[in-house]
Amino acid sequence: MHGLHLTADLRGCPPQAALFTDPEALRQRCLHEVRCCGLRPVGELFHRFAGGGGVTGVVLLAESHLAVHTWPELAAVTLDVYVCNFGADNSARAEALLAALEAAFSPVDVQRQRLQRGGA
Amino acid sequence: MHGLHLTADLRGCPPQAALFTDPEALRQRCLHEVRCCGLRPVGELFHRFAGGGGVTGVVLLAESHLAVHTWPELAAVTLDVYVCNFGADNSARAEALLAALEAAFSPVDVQRQRLQRGGA
Repeated sequence: MHGLHLTADLRGCPPQAALFTDPEALRQRCLHEVRCCGLRPVGELFHRFAGGGGVTGVVLLAESHLAVHTWPELAAVTLDVYVCNFGADNSARAEALLAALEAAFSPVDVQRQRLQRGGA
Repeated sequence: MHGLHLTADLRGCPPQAALFTDPEALRQRCLHEVRCCGLRPVGELFHRFAGGGGVTGVVLLAESHLAVHTWPELAAVTLDVYVCNFGADNSARAEALLAALEAAFSPVDVQRQRLQRGGA
């Protein structure tokens, strides 16, 4: 269960991007980036909020999970990438996945945080 | 998108508990505790790994998400509760949910971390 949890809170993203409001577009992009980074999806779930709201979604990974929440009304997105390092060090894959998804939303500002999980 | 993200990494849990390996038991318990704490589920997904492995699952919330990963082989569990405080302060609900799920697994040791997300 020892692992790395990365968060990125994005502001100033162009909110007209399909990724903000189209759960299928966001799902496909997330799965694409997960696979490109060498992580292994085992399931995914994306939900669009009513009334012109954003999308919230997760990709469950063999290595733990990716979570994305979009707020088109705030031009904001939050990203979580959590990978356990049980059997292999997935830290570089997690960093690559976060960077790819950040780039997909073209933010003006990013607040990043980094947690070591589960002790040594 | 301003919000609170709580993590808890549990060790020394009795791994024979059904919550470790039965995705339906874990799903029901998570949904029950989410509702008891006044948070609003909008979808959920639970996956059991093959070969006697653990369960990984999420509950998508109107307020963001709950994620749970179990490792029966390590008697360990990781929990994430992330709530946005857009429109209401959900911090107390997040704390209550985390405490309820920690108690459900009866850990010997818990490592907790607390992130403020999304700026002021």
